[in-house]
Amino acid sequence: MNAPGLGGTAAPLRVGLIGSGRIGRMHAGLLAGAINGAVLSAVTDAMPDLADEIGRTYNVPAVETDRLIADPAIDAVAICAPTSTHVRYIIEAAEAGKSIFCEKPVSLDLAEVDRALAVVSRAGARLMVGFNRRFDPSHAAVRVAVANGSVGAPHIVRITSRDPEPPPMSYARGSGGIFLDMTVHDFDMARYVVGSEVVEVTAAGAVRTDPELEGIGDVDTAVTMLRHENACLTVIDNSRQASYGYDQRVEVLGAKGLAGSDNPRTTTAFTWDGSGTRAATLPYFFIERYRESYLRQWEAFVASVASGTPPPTSGADGRAALVLGLAAKRSLLEHRTVQTAEIQPQVGTGRLEA
Amino acid sequence: MNAPGLGGTAAPLRVGLIGSGRIGRMHAGLLAGAINGAVLSAVTDAMPDLADEIGRTYNVPAVETDRLIADPAIDAVAICAPTSTHVRYIIEAAEAGKSIFCEKPVSLDLAEVDRALAVVSRAGARLMVGFNRRFDPSHAAVRVAVANGSVGAPHIVRITSRDPEPPPMSYARGSGGIFLDMTVHDFDMARYVVGSEVVEVTAAGAVRTDPELEGIGDVDTAVTMLRHENACLTVIDNSRQASYGYDQRVEVLGAKGLAGSDNPRTTTAFTWDGSGTRAATLPYFFIERYRESYLRQWEAFVASVASGTPPPTSGADGRAALVLGLAAKRSLLEHRTVQTAEIQPQVGTGRLEA
Amino acid sequence: MNAPGLGGTAAPLRVGLIGSGRIGRMHAGLLAGAINGAVLSAVTDAMPDLADEIGRTYNVPAVETDRLIADPAIDAVAICAPTSTHVRYIIEAAEAGKSIFCEKPVSLDLAEVDRALAVVSRAGARLMVGFNRRFDPSHAAVRVAVANGSVGAPHIVRITSRDPEPPPMSYARGSGGIFLDMTVHDFDMARYVVGSEVVEVTAAGAVRTDPELEGIGDVDTAVTMLRHENACLTVIDNSRQASYGYDQRVEVLGAKGLAGSDNPRTTTAFTWDGSGTRAATLPYFFIERYRESYLRQWEAFVASVASGTPPPTSGADGRAALVLGLAAKRSLLEHRTVQTAEIQPQVGTGRLEA
Amino acid sequence: MNAPGLGGTAAPLRVGLIGSGRIGRMHAGLLAGAINGAVLSAVTDAMPDLADEIGRTYNVPAVETDRLIADPAIDAVAICAPTSTHVRYIIEAAEAGKSIFCEKPVSLDLAEVDRALAVVSRAGARLMVGFNRRFDPSHAAVRVAVANGSVGAPHIVRITSRDPEPPPMSYARGSGGIFLDMTVHDFDMARYVVGSEVVEVTAAGAVRTDPELEGIGDVDTAVTMLRHENACLTVIDNSRQASYGYDQRVEVLGAKGLAGSDNPRTTTAFTWDGSGTRAATLPYFFIERYRESYLRQWEAFVASVASGTPPPTSGADGRAALVLGLAAKRSLLEHRTVQTAEIQPQVGTGRLEA
Repeated sequence: MNAPGLGGTAAPLRVGLIGSGRIGRMHAGLLAGAINGAVLSAVTDAMPDLADEIGRTYNVPAVETDRLIADPAIDAVAICAPTSTHVRYIIEAAEAGKSIFCEKPVSLDLAEVDRALAVVSRAGARLMVGFNRRFDPSHAAVRVAVANGSVGAPHIVRITSRDPEPPPMSYARGSGGIFLDMTVHDFDMARYVVGSEVVEVTAAGAVRTDPELEGIGDVDTAVTMLRHENACLTVIDNSRQASYGYDQRVEVLGAKGLAGSDNPRTTTAFTWDGSGTRAATLPYFFIERYRESYLRQWEAFVASVASGTPPPTSGADGRAALVLGLAAKRSLLEHRTVQTAEIQPQVGTGRLEA
Repeated sequence: MNAPGLGGTAAPLRVGLIGSGRIGRMHAGLLAGAINGAVLSAVTDAMPDLADEIGRTYNVPAVETDRLIADPAIDAVAICAPTSTHVRYIIEAAEAGKSIFCEKPVSLDLAEVDRALAVVSRAGARLMVGFNRRFDPSHAAVRVAVANGSVGAPHIVRITSRDPEPPPMSYARGSGGIFLDMTVHDFDMARYVVGSEVVEVTAAGAVRTDPELEGIGDVDTAVTMLRHENACLTVIDNSRQASYGYDQRVEVLGAKGLAGSDNPRTTTAFTWDGSGTRAATLPYFFIERYRESYLRQWEAFVASVASGTPPPTSGADGRAALVLGLAAKRSLLEHRTVQTAEIQPQVGTGRLEA
Repeated sequence: MNAPGLGGTAAPLRVGLIGSGRIGRMHAGLLAGAINGAVLSAVTDAMPDLADEIGRTYNVPAVETDRLIADPAIDAVAICAPTSTHVRYIIEAAEAGKSIFCEKPVSLDLAEVDRALAVVSRAGARLMVGFNRRFDPSHAAVRVAVANGSVGAPHIVRITSRDPEPPPMSYARGSGGIFLDMTVHDFDMARYVVGSEVVEVTAAGAVRTDPELEGIGDVDTAVTMLRHENACLTVIDNSRQASYGYDQRVEVLGAKGLAGSDNPRTTTAFTWDGSGTRAATLPYFFIERYRESYLRQWEAFVASVASGTPPPTSGADGRAALVLGLAAKRSLLEHRTVQTAEIQPQVGTGRLEA
Repeated sequence: MNAPGLGGTAAPLRVGLIGSGRIGRMHAGLLAGAINGAVLSAVTDAMPDLADEIGRTYNVPAVETDRLIADPAIDAVAICAPTSTHVRYIIEAAEAGKSIFCEKPVSLDLAEVDRALAVVSRAGARLMVGFNRRFDPSHAAVRVAVANGSVGAPHIVRITSRDPEPPPMSYARGSGGIFLDMTVHDFDMARYVVGSEVVEVTAAGAVRTDPELEGIGDVDTAVTMLRHENACLTVIDNSRQASYGYDQRVEVLGAKGLAGSDNPRTTTAFTWDGSGTRAATLPYFFIERYRESYLRQWEAFVASVASGTPPPTSGADGRAALVLGLAAKRSLLEHRTVQTAEIQPQVGTGRLEA
């Protein structure tokens, strides 16, 4: 329960929302009602109708993106537009002196990411990349158990991450494939909970639920092994279609014990009868599962701006996860273990990696 | 995730908040950010500073209570002021033609409740009493399992309802005692899940955590047995001080099976080591535990107004729970089983019951 | 896993089994294969065929009861015959110098119990009464948490104890009713986990599953409240017919925390799909649920004999639980709270209590 | 609860135990007390004292192995001696016309396995290999959910299999390494639950708990990916040292849902306090965890003999699991994905594989 503004003394951070699709609307709702220290101040979208609708709902102006970025009454931007626009908006916002929250991924092209990060660095801007799962209290507790030493040195990490249904093919085509679109969250989670960089990636995949994916070289079912610098082995399994809901589990075996985060249930109701015991379903998808993480992500962004400290999930984190995704793509394609050091930006080629 | 106004076509219900204490602030936050079809429009409090603070936070006027009730731009009132004021505000609001949401209890005096309900009835007003737990999805699922017959005729109901810490003595003194203040929620829950009125009440109690309660004839630990018209036996246990958090469980044994609602945990994190397995704490108290129920309660209120149907928790429900509370008080005092038919309003005496 | 005899140096205790019905056969199997320090040495039954069958299975002689009790090659007897024979066999075995294990209850007649206990006392015999649930590791852990102070002073105890199906009417008729036959285990559990005697009993009951019970003044559904000397309140709920299996739960709320024992499942298998999550059934009945407790009960009996210390569940424990059962019967009949001090043996009347 | 002999009409299977170490003693206890249709009839060991001890405990003769195998009063042998002796005893017992139960693995040398299986086949003998986990009711329920189609085609299998403590180095040296000694059970489990052969193996490993293992080319921490013929991906993770106990979990994601088997707890006791909720430990090791599976394995062996049907875990199953272990060893050594078709017996070389 967050009482907006109660107890806060500083002026709230005025946030302009760029992109009014599903994830943008969610951020608008959070900013409008539940974030201490931030307010939604303007909204934009390439499709003005969508922006207008959010504007009316939350009583904020719907404007053009250039104007929003240039507006001195906007302190920060939340980039929720399509991935292909991220680098442009990051650069423009950085040059306009805004604090920047950008949904993952920064780009599917490593050279483009490097270009954006260079501008951000030169401008001294603040860029936070939306790896919301780090802010989920359950996953965060796993990280805490590793970081404070209570589970000992991490030996094996298991990450299960499955969506309830595949995206439309139109989306899949531009997504960069399962490793850049979906597993990228898990790569970040692996780096986060282990606290050690990944040196080696081995991926296996299969098309099991949507045969059309074969045509674009993508898979819907994947298992990826990571070896970290500190010798920890991480295994990630993904599916685009878990019929039972959104499956999000993390588990660390350490020298002294195990820490994990289980799936919540939509309710705590249960029934027992002669055929067994039943409990509620898993949350349907990320909107239901990760509300708390999105709230805490905003609080972390606000705190970072207020305190002048670096954001907890930086552009470098976005880059590192992309590198792992590119390594996994290459591993799948070449049917071999790939060293992350093999993945380098292809500057000037204009081609996507891997 | 509720996106206010999205998809709604009717003008939202304009709600005036009467009472800006803890529960009032919570309702203000919900109305401001997350309720589809309702908006917070004004706020009042006997202590103007509290009202002003909420007003500033949510950008609504803080006004005097009489003005709020008289204001034609207010469609409904949310009565969250102290219990002693409920009857007065209900009557004034009913006569002013407002829809009324009132926190439980309507009054500690059965004759006063009857006076308020008579005015509401004459005025044709809508009164919903705040038995929020009915709207908790987990408890509601228990009711559904009974109502749809899947557990069969209810035989035994177990309700555990324990607070993490006792209220201050100043509050306890005016609360009417544990049965009217705390168990009243459980009495409503028993009526709700069983779907049958209670005919007999037997209560036992003890002072275990706060010896001062002895001086005011109250207890902090209680077990209450109910017999329903349909022969179901309900047992409720209460404590004012469960050191592990807010314990809220309901369970129905029926002829064909069992349905229950378990406590949630604050996270799904867990750890295992040689000494055993650990999981997270229970929610601390009702604000953390019942957020979803308060949201859905507002949605039910809005839906009731919009559709012109009776509210799901009526004044009569408030009265029935009070009768059970008064019966339990008498049972404890007289050390015997009390028939609910024994509890009658003491009109004109001006004394509290029991 | 108990390897009989491995590591033991003393000669094993030679046990004669009196009674070859269901519970007798179970004890025979345990004594034959899994108890360290005891061996099954002879068996008897009023129906010789039953005794013969057990004798053949475990390669021990089936003899007449008088001979078994008189046999100097028998160290101890396990009385598993019908309740009506318990007092006679206890007295004969005590006078023959045997150590005695007797299934609960000693008798349904308090005067008879006192007569048996007096003989046992005069003879200096060892009598252990079969309150096997105390030896269940899960319930025992609850007692440990109370006894070592980790949950603090006990405030509220909840005991749920439900059978999967009612016994035949022929059995019910001679059982003394639900409180003496079934709840008696829970009365013992309450005394055990709380560690304080009960001073007051209030019972409510209903006939919900077997209308024939009305004819014999018995009920199949009951809720019983106990007040202990130390102010703890215990509530027990019973049903003769829980369609989902054998429900056995104990929970203690103390000043510092809560300790409980949950139902096991028959397996740890689970399934998840779009309609929810499922797990296995509860154990069907006591044979499945309490195997471990029966094993440990024998180990405790053997240890008591070997060390010359009193058995952990004595004749006095059997008597105390019977008193509570008689108080509950009277409470149900007279519709009032009954003080346990009211329950006195009706010596010489030859009538059953209550 | 198995009452030996009750209800059985056929003469029980007379089993001779070869090998009286830890696992042999366990089988002796099961055969002596709890298996319907089988009796322990003789025992042998290279160390006669061990055999004598078991013989005295269960009142069976301790004899020399050759005599045991030749004895016409023995129907079946249980080979629980060291791995290096398995092939010899299998061949001798097959030629003597015994039914054979052999603990896994048959041999670490694929050519030797083939030699044994050829003799068994020629002799028309019955050989069952001890993959006890298939008989665990929880894992078996997972297989049932796949086999009956309720989870749909299997897409991803997760197997976690971790020991609480490493074996002594003396054992490790002769064990064939983690993949042949420990993961071999998981390879069998993967084949069992998926119901499809494995075509490809990729293994990663690390030495994290016992540096001495580096000297013998073994690891104590491993992750192995399998690709099955039906496109299912299986991932197995192993550790020789899980400080919290014996971790044994299997989970199948299928097109229609998920089925899994969780770890049991040593009790169902729990405690709640302000710091969280606690439950009991996991079982310490296989003796505690898998008692039920060993019982059912014997029942399956007895049923196979009695009905003349093939044993459910055959010599071919033992061979297949060994092939996967050899492939995993090669994958680890050569740091590449290995096709199972690459693994061929090295007849006549006398060298171990990989």
